[in-house]
Amino acid sequence: MPELRKDPVIGRWVIIAVERSRRPKGFKAPSHKDTEEDCPFCEGKEDQTPHEIFAIRKEGSTPDKPGWDTRVVPSKRPFLRVEGSINRHGRGLYDVMSGIGAHEVIIETPKHIGNIADLEETQIAKTVTCWIDRFVDLGRDERFKYVLVFKNYGVAAGAGHVKHSRSQLIATPVTPKRVKEELIGSKKYYEYHERCVFCDLVHQEIESKDRIVLDFDGFIAVTAFASRFPFEVWILPKEHNCDFSSMGVEKRLYLGKVLKKVLTKLKVALDDPAYNIVLHTAPFRRKKAKTGYWTTIEDDYHWHIEIIPRLGSTAGFEWGTGFYICPITPEDAAQYLREVEE
Amino acid sequence: MPELRKDPVIGRWVIIAVERSRRPKGFKAPSHKDTEEDCPFCEGKEDQTPHEIFAIRKEGSTPDKPGWDTRVVPSKRPFLRVEGSINRHGRGLYDVMSGIGAHEVIIETPKHIGNIADLEETQIAKTVTCWIDRFVDLGRDERFKYVLVFKNYGVAAGAGHVKHSRSQLIATPVTPKRVKEELIGSKKYYEYHERCVFCDLVHQEIESKDRIVLDFDGFIAVTAFASRFPFEVWILPKEHNCDFSSMGVEKRLYLGKVLKKVLTKLKVALDDPAYNIVLHTAPFRRKKAKTGYWTTIEDDYHWHIEIIPRLGSTAGFEWGTGFYICPITPEDAAQYLREVEE
Repeated sequence: MPELRKDPVIGRWVIIAVERSRRPKGFKAPSHKDTEEDCPFCEGKEDQTPHEIFAIRKEGSTPDKPGWDTRVVPSKRPFLRVEGSINRHGRGLYDVMSGIGAHEVIIETPKHIGNIADLEETQIAKTVTCWIDRFVDLGRDERFKYVLVFKNYGVAAGAGHVKHSRSQLIATPVTPKRVKEELIGSKKYYEYHERCVFCDLVHQEIESKDRIVLDFDGFIAVTAFASRFPFEVWILPKEHNCDFSSMGVEKRLYLGKVLKKVLTKLKVALDDPAYNIVLHTAPFRRKKAKTGYWTTIEDDYHWHIEIIPRLGSTAGFEWGTGFYICPITPEDAAQYLREVEE
Repeated sequence: MPELRKDPVIGRWVIIAVERSRRPKGFKAPSHKDTEEDCPFCEGKEDQTPHEIFAIRKEGSTPDKPGWDTRVVPSKRPFLRVEGSINRHGRGLYDVMSGIGAHEVIIETPKHIGNIADLEETQIAKTVTCWIDRFVDLGRDERFKYVLVFKNYGVAAGAGHVKHSRSQLIATPVTPKRVKEELIGSKKYYEYHERCVFCDLVHQEIESKDRIVLDFDGFIAVTAFASRFPFEVWILPKEHNCDFSSMGVEKRLYLGKVLKKVLTKLKVALDDPAYNIVLHTAPFRRKKAKTGYWTTIEDDYHWHIEIIPRLGSTAGFEWGTGFYICPITPEDAAQYLREVEE
């Protein structure tokens, strides 16, 4: 059973994934080639994955058989385990929790295509629908506080060697540190200004235009003002909303469009870079009486997507300090991305 | 002039190093070879670096000439600039500060040796003396709040291609986020327990032995209980002390010994991995009356060194979430390191 452990000083929870343990010499990723025949995520290979949890399928098709557009399956090597109850305990001064959670893989296309940027907008919108469906479903499980939806593209971003386009989600019994910090920060801003900090950011970015990469269909894509990394791009809905999963069908298509455009721009500008995508949305809110679940629409948080291209080994001491050095201005990066033909 | 920018939501300061800007295509590090003839850090090449700020030299030798053991010079491509005053201002909702600071390089040996693990203990102790001297000297500058001492070893850790063993320091007008979090966390612990969290950690680790890598001469080296990365090792003085720079000459030699042993173990165990070292110590304390500077010995903070081997691209979404997954238990890692012959 994996274990959640809390840093006793700064309070960050980490997953110690004991069942994935490898001998020290085995930390380099195996260098096997990516071939379509060996890919377990292609249509027709459904027997090579665990049973599907959710899928968008053609009418009349059967679960775990061909005929799907997008498909969600449990991870074969999960970071966290679904079975069991949350057992918080101390180990001397340290805090520990059993590694309860869910770890799922969203297969974004039946075809052997690597980069989500190369899928149709409508196909990307179906991926968004998968994220939302799983988010809502996992929210019904009272043990979970958060669902982390993310995507690693390219080996340098932590992806495996099989290139078939997919994203992942982890449902956790704790709120990730970065999300908690954002919640606290945006609440403080709201308390002072009585306005959402992200709404203010959207307005200011639209007005100044300096960091705008795209602005259409209810979304903006901007390079972050205090970028940690070159070409760090945030996608935000222009209208206030804390809850990603409340997005309607039409908006999902618009988001698919924006994601395709931004990721294609990055692909062209940076020569198909590795990247990470992380969805930031409000944690599940729970009724204290345990009469069910609901998420409230908060005034002080605003969901968004962060895209971080992984360009070379720019990161050194940043890991240990939280102090980042970005070697290119976000304004130059935005201008470059605006000019790139997608 | 570089610029310090603050993330408006979570309050993290980053350096936007505009003068280091490169065109997007130029982000991959140039692949020139490391050769002794081309190394600007070897003895005899003193004219290829800026003028030295501090050096440990043989008696009778001249600054910027041969005859040194360790040598500190300003960075040729500094992240921050020493000249100017701190100018905090807003840019709409964003906070900005001029990029004032110091960025120095500590050359750890006159010989062309890459890994500090391969230096003599006494030589490593001289590096520690350089860190301390520069820390104390930069502390006299009222503009600076913190001196970040760190080391990138290997290209995967963000080091350049010239392998000559060296560390760096950055003096900053802000406290790095991670350090601030530690200060707040350890203060909270102290308020509740009236004990230093790091002292408690030292005692518990010595008692349990599970994560001990080394324990001698007043220091312990342990794998972190809530490790973010495989083989993340912390070195802590057993005796309480918040201020690294108060360390006496004898202790510096002991620290040199411990660093050599731990880094040699990592080198052997993990096949000469890239790594980052970061020194965590208390920020400068200022007298309000501006009558000079002093650092007080705080009860609630405890200096230490963090070593993070960079093993493959294990990190994916961790960047964006602050949520880490460590694929090996710290206990297994510690056992392995204990058994390795250094």
